Amino acid sequence: MTATVPSVIPASHLDLLERPLFAHLATTRPDGQPQVNPMWFHWDGEFVRFSNTTIRHKYRNVTANPRVAFSVNDPDQPYRYLEVRGTVERIDPDPNAAFFMQLADRYSLRMDALPPDAPHRVIYVVRPTSVSKQ
Amino acid sequence: MTATVPSVIPASHLDLLERPLFAHLATTRPDGQPQVNPMWFHWDGEFVRFSNTTIRHKYRNVTANPRVAFSVNDPDQPYRYLEVRGTVERIDPDPNAAFFMQLADRYSLRMDALPPDAPHRVIYVVRPTSVSKQ
Repeated sequence: MTATVPSVIPASHLDLLERPLFAHLATTRPDGQPQVNPMWFHWDGEFVRFSNTTIRHKYRNVTANPRVAFSVNDPDQPYRYLEVRGTVERIDPDPNAAFFMQLADRYSLRMDALPPDAPHRVIYVVRPTSVSKQ
Repeated sequence: MTATVPSVIPASHLDLLERPLFAHLATTRPDGQPQVNPMWFHWDGEFVRFSNTTIRHKYRNVTANPRVAFSVNDPDQPYRYLEVRGTVERIDPDPNAAFFMQLADRYSLRMDALPPDAPHRVIYVVRPTSVSKQ
């Protein structure tokens, strides 16, 4: 995948966004406590997208504070990783959980039906602003 | 390993703290931006300890805001994970990088000498306060 706009993502670590790895996504709770957990994601060369629902703590977090960060490490080279810091630039609707189903396919999880929380699914559209790596 | 004091860590996921896995540790920058990256750690049944140095951004972060979170996922069952939220209760000195060397041994990284940043090594002593898991 080629970035069509200038990106902060270093070419040396692009593969970590292109492979179906888990991103450990950090958000901030309203009381200031960080929260972090592994998430599916998709990178289009400009934005990183995550699927979530409006009934999760994370939704409350990013609505109040859109600044997030995530790290992805290389399962084949455990000391190699990419951290991306950025902002949830917008939260898009996900009618019929279409984006969620696209992620399930990317991560080779077979879904025989829409997930039960499909009506609540939304997409966090994150613009990367800075990175660290090893 | 048996906890000697009551712990918030569920028995079902204790193995994720006992195995030499990576914890994706989230801290908060002074401007409120989360930061997260994979770290070695050690769990003693009460505290989770991380090695860092006083010359890293993370030190500045936890000194200003001791609330942290980390997630560990199971490489053998990728949808299984433990998230721990907690507080850096204290920052201990690490003379001669002894704790760092103990971690290197736990993670089977052979060190032929002390790391160059040994004089700056400190230990973040984190008390878990809450968890989420899958």
